[in-house]
Amino acid sequence: MPKIVDHEKRKQHIAEAAWRVILERGMQGASVRNIAREAGLSLGALRHYFSSQRELLHFSMKLVQERVETRIGEIAGSALPPRERALRVLLELVPVDQETWAEMEVWFAFVYHARFEGLENVLKDRLWQGMRRLIRYLHDCRVLRPGLDLEFEAERLYALVDGLALHALLEPERLSRERVTEVLVKHLASICTEERQDAPR
Amino acid sequence: MPKIVDHEKRKQHIAEAAWRVILERGMQGASVRNIAREAGLSLGALRHYFSSQRELLHFSMKLVQERVETRIGEIAGSALPPRERALRVLLELVPVDQETWAEMEVWFAFVYHARFEGLENVLKDRLWQGMRRLIRYLHDCRVLRPGLDLEFEAERLYALVDGLALHALLEPERLSRERVTEVLVKHLASICTEERQDAPR
Repeated sequence: MPKIVDHEKRKQHIAEAAWRVILERGMQGASVRNIAREAGLSLGALRHYFSSQRELLHFSMKLVQERVETRIGEIAGSALPPRERALRVLLELVPVDQETWAEMEVWFAFVYHARFEGLENVLKDRLWQGMRRLIRYLHDCRVLRPGLDLEFEAERLYALVDGLALHALLEPERLSRERVTEVLVKHLASICTEERQDAPR
Repeated sequence: MPKIVDHEKRKQHIAEAAWRVILERGMQGASVRNIAREAGLSLGALRHYFSSQRELLHFSMKLVQERVETRIGEIAGSALPPRERALRVLLELVPVDQETWAEMEVWFAFVYHARFEGLENVLKDRLWQGMRRLIRYLHDCRVLRPGLDLEFEAERLYALVDGLALHALLEPERLSRERVTEVLVKHLASICTEERQDAPR
């Protein structure tokens, strides 16, 4: 089935071109024409893969989602102690390197744009559910301080992570990668019990 | 000086028209032409007050800032106990009613747009400094729990408030006004000492 593989690969190539255009010019510059040029394709060739700008943007957004979820899945399957594992997951959701930076840019561009274009926001509910699972996981590992309100902690963590992501994107000169990491480490420390050397794996 | 007053009033009228256009169509719809139409002015008449779209958007943004700061100034001058005063200030920064909703919309549209258009973001540093002052104020009133890291608490509160604002805007069906208020109340409770009935005024 080489044809199908090629088709999917070409779609990813176009989606990545869309990311680069969004990164450079914002969503207002993400016309099908500009994306085709960036991908090195004619408008007609691009239309063979995506029949509308809406379809293309939706696919690009889902690709961001899949990549983030793949990386988080790898961390979830690792042998790290619970608090460290939680931190690593959270660091996938804030722009701390080239890759997460580009994803965040695309994500913000998309969610903002989606509101006016009637595009479905594929990520937001998954993120919220992910935060609830993360807090529940820390609770089940007995790492969370006793007596905390789990729903509140999930809501607070969700807002904190997206607020940090927004600020890191808008104020990179003030909010370095180290600073973002430090805030997340301290926040986790404030809701977790004292770290044990023999943390369960 | 009736002429000067009129001039300033007319500029505000145009800025408010710009907000309505941004609310309805996003920043991509905020052309000078659309704003003139919304304000009931000819393009020529509008150009008498603002020579460019950039100047108009900048003025509109500063007007949001002034209104928020006026309301916060009123709360700061009120006779509320410290923790309640802090909560009231924070509630001015999240979309909990028609007015703050519109301001947040314009703010997000602006900060996002500003990055690609080279517009100066007039608000962000003031917000960060405001959060530092708020935490310092709670500390000086001896309302903050002893031993907290003030810089970290300011950074965490700043991210939390903007994260909640973003989520309230993007997920209004999930994050009601009551829910946002509850999260802020609980967060303040987690960093403040037990409330006293005779809180200092």
